[in-house]
Amino acid sequence: MSTVTLVEYEDASPEVIAVYDDIRAVRNTDYINNFWKALAQHPDTLKRVWSSLKAVMAEGEIDALTKEMIYIAVSVANNCDYCIHSHTASAFSKGMTSGQYEELMAVIGMAHQTNGIGSGLKVPVDECYLK
Amino acid sequence: MSTVTLVEYEDASPEVIAVYDDIRAVRNTDYINNFWKALAQHPDTLKRVWSSLKAVMAEGEIDALTKEMIYIAVSVANNCDYCIHSHTASAFSKGMTSGQYEELMAVIGMAHQTNGIGSGLKVPVDECYLK
Amino acid sequence: MSTVTLVEYEDASPEVIAVYDDIRAVRNTDYINNFWKALAQHPDTLKRVWSSLKAVMAEGEIDALTKEMIYIAVSVANNCDYCIHSHTASAFSKGMTSGQYEELMAVIGMAHQTNGIGSGLKVPVDECYLK
Amino acid sequence: MSTVTLVEYEDASPEVIAVYDDIRAVRNTDYINNFWKALAQHPDTLKRVWSSLKAVMAEGEIDALTKEMIYIAVSVANNCDYCIHSHTASAFSKGMTSGQYEELMAVIGMAHQTNGIGSGLKVPVDECYLK
Amino acid sequence: MSTVTLVEYEDASPEVIAVYDDIRAVRNTDYINNFWKALAQHPDTLKRVWSSLKAVMAEGEIDALTKEMIYIAVSVANNCDYCIHSHTASAFSKGMTSGQYEELMAVIGMAHQTNGIGSGLKVPVDECYLK
Amino acid sequence: MSTVTLVEYEDASPEVIAVYDDIRAVRNTDYINNFWKALAQHPDTLKRVWSSLKAVMAEGEIDALTKEMIYIAVSVANNCDYCIHSHTASAFSKGMTSGQYEELMAVIGMAHQTNGIGSGLKVPVDECYLK
Repeated sequence: MSTVTLVEYEDASPEVIAVYDDIRAVRNTDYINNFWKALAQHPDTLKRVWSSLKAVMAEGEIDALTKEMIYIAVSVANNCDYCIHSHTASAFSKGMTSGQYEELMAVIGMAHQTNGIGSGLKVPVDECYLK
Repeated sequence: MSTVTLVEYEDASPEVIAVYDDIRAVRNTDYINNFWKALAQHPDTLKRVWSSLKAVMAEGEIDALTKEMIYIAVSVANNCDYCIHSHTASAFSKGMTSGQYEELMAVIGMAHQTNGIGSGLKVPVDECYLK
Repeated sequence: MSTVTLVEYEDASPEVIAVYDDIRAVRNTDYINNFWKALAQHPDTLKRVWSSLKAVMAEGEIDALTKEMIYIAVSVANNCDYCIHSHTASAFSKGMTSGQYEELMAVIGMAHQTNGIGSGLKVPVDECYLK
Repeated sequence: MSTVTLVEYEDASPEVIAVYDDIRAVRNTDYINNFWKALAQHPDTLKRVWSSLKAVMAEGEIDALTKEMIYIAVSVANNCDYCIHSHTASAFSKGMTSGQYEELMAVIGMAHQTNGIGSGLKVPVDECYLK
Repeated sequence: MSTVTLVEYEDASPEVIAVYDDIRAVRNTDYINNFWKALAQHPDTLKRVWSSLKAVMAEGEIDALTKEMIYIAVSVANNCDYCIHSHTASAFSKGMTSGQYEELMAVIGMAHQTNGIGSGLKVPVDECYLK
Repeated sequence: MSTVTLVEYEDASPEVIAVYDDIRAVRNTDYINNFWKALAQHPDTLKRVWSSLKAVMAEGEIDALTKEMIYIAVSVANNCDYCIHSHTASAFSKGMTSGQYEELMAVIGMAHQTNGIGSGLKVPVDECYLK
């Protein structure tokens, strides 16, 4: 009872199917990944989270691939195993090169390091950054 | 004794000055921000961290502004107040628009949300992501 | 040598058995979960942590099920896989409904999102909250 | 340019005012806290986050005060200073007693402790929790 | 109402005074730092947390200064501003040298970096570490 | 494409072999652990991270075993599964006793607890810690 149930398309209620169909249309693929199948146990949450994600991750002033790299950065810092896997796959599918992936990991590692040192040394924020 | 001392250029040792001069040259500004002044109490660490940061944050297959946005994303997730301030300032100075900033915050917020839900529901990683 | 050893009841020392018996009595079950079996390698820690947990998680002004939901919320944010699993099981065993579980996950996700945005935007705390 | 601007009601655009008015109506108070004033620079994000928060935090199978306590738990673990302050104030305004607050802090502290030990010892998840 | 009240020695109840006196005796100083004064609003929590901390931080197979450095490391990673300040002060009072402090910060920064990269790349744990 | 590739010694380029040989020499073992094999896909990152780690983790004013324990503390707080495993193995190989390991886990757990409570109660930093 305590583990997640994945709702397959075949077993889904009409309101879940409506979201699944929208995911398929927006992403131009039949594949529904496990995150949504897990959320489908909670149709209201599924609808709300998907509609937010669709709006946020759409091509905008920041391009879609960059958004995926930012998503990976957050997910690594929060150490969400599922999200690291899914958004890394997504970034590669959107054209992330091997060189970009290396640089992404390097920036993430570097930021972690200075985050630790900055917090550890309790560096005061520069006046000019507070204006 | 327990709070950080900021080493000003005028008081710095030759090895610290060498790093400060490199920071100024690379960034094309006389301004040395507090992070480096705090690290300057520890010259070996200063040199090591600066040389790594310089290499990692240089324009590459990922452009310099995108790297700053990724840096902000990590710093927000790790909640390093200093790094959020300094890299937000840096991103704006490299041309981040107001619209990009809004989208950056939206992606960061969205990633946090699904990180929480993904970890909370213990969603199993899709087989296809493990290949 | 680097992995954890689980101390079974049959192999436990008298001081560990005393704790195990108390766990069984308090929880009204013979089952001892792995967390305690792992701690049992360190009997002083076992006794200290169990006696604290027993005091903290007892029915009080906050009921026992609500305490489990709060425990899950912290464990998700800290991403402790073991604790998420064990306290989710515990919450269900104490009567958490499917609807409460959905709402719990939704609140956790929402809090993560605004935590990220609040830290990212560096929103100043309202004066009225500081009184 | 790098710090947040708070949009006051008097200076807000019509779409921001519509959200502000809804916040006032739902919360039955004229007070708009800084989080929303900061988000108001980004009207789309303001609308999206507020409509999600309104849905998630409404009285449901989990009562509104308990939801605030869960929110605090996540915010403490993520160490979002703003969110800790605002949701602690909110919980007190919804009737959290001094005794509940003590127990909330005790549960949060306890969960942090076992999160650390559980991750540190790499305790394997019990088979029965995976069914 | 939402901010913390610090209970001064003069205003403390007998059970709080008993803890304060023990803190003074164990630490060989009259100074009671704010953490305990804040906890004193919750006497049961005060007693429980202090008795645990006293046991855990006592000289043992790990010396007291090393324990402080470990405490700092955790506090930096969790970004607890109060704990970073208090335990850094404590470590210096127990004899931490400037050189040790530099190395502590360097190790903390390094660990953060490889934590980020290790999680980001999803490096599989070596078989030999799982035996 | 989205999972990590481990570069074995036999398949490594000359610049990767140079790092591998240095790892073997410094650690006095033929074993190259997976972290470095994963980084080897990114030779520049491999070189940079290894040279930093070698400098930081060398015996200094803090001895090498203590540095490993500090590393574990950070890794537990950041919940990096790989780093917890590898540095726990490393600490044991450098002579960490069972008693030290117990105390390390106890300190880590204790720090997590007071980190949570300190942040939750928003305890103000003592004036004397800010001097």
